[in-house]
Amino acid sequence: MSELPKAPVGRLLKNAGAQRISGDAVELLSEAIEDYGANLASRANDLAHHAGRKTVKASDIKLAMQ
Amino acid sequence: MSELPKAPVGRLLKNAGAQRISGDAVELLSEAIEDYGANLASRANDLAHHAGRKTVKASDIKLAMQ
Repeated sequence: MSELPKAPVGRLLKNAGAQRISGDAVELLSEAIEDYGANLASRANDLAHHAGRKTVKASDIKLAMQ
Repeated sequence: MSELPKAPVGRLLKNAGAQRISGDAVELLSEAIEDYGANLASRANDLAHHAGRKTVKASDIKLAMQ
């Protein structure tokens, strides 16, 4: 199941100009966002370990995004 | 400001195995996820318009992800 709440994901679509939104569109966008975030989080965690840290820092996220 | 709440974004990092997480890491990951989602949402909205619909459907999200 998706970790992210549906309301803010729906707002992303509204903010993009969507007039009406189907429920399954919100669900799929939420999954896509979460998969992307989980992938970044995993890479960032690997980078923190690689640097000999237990704490994931913004610099790990930044490098994971490259 | 970010639309997404911080708690589920922090959980993505915890689920990825992070032992400790700095606050700015959660903030940056949240922004990255939101930018990605906003971009997908915008492309999906354009695709719905292109198909002559006012309703954004899951098929628009799917095509936007390709």
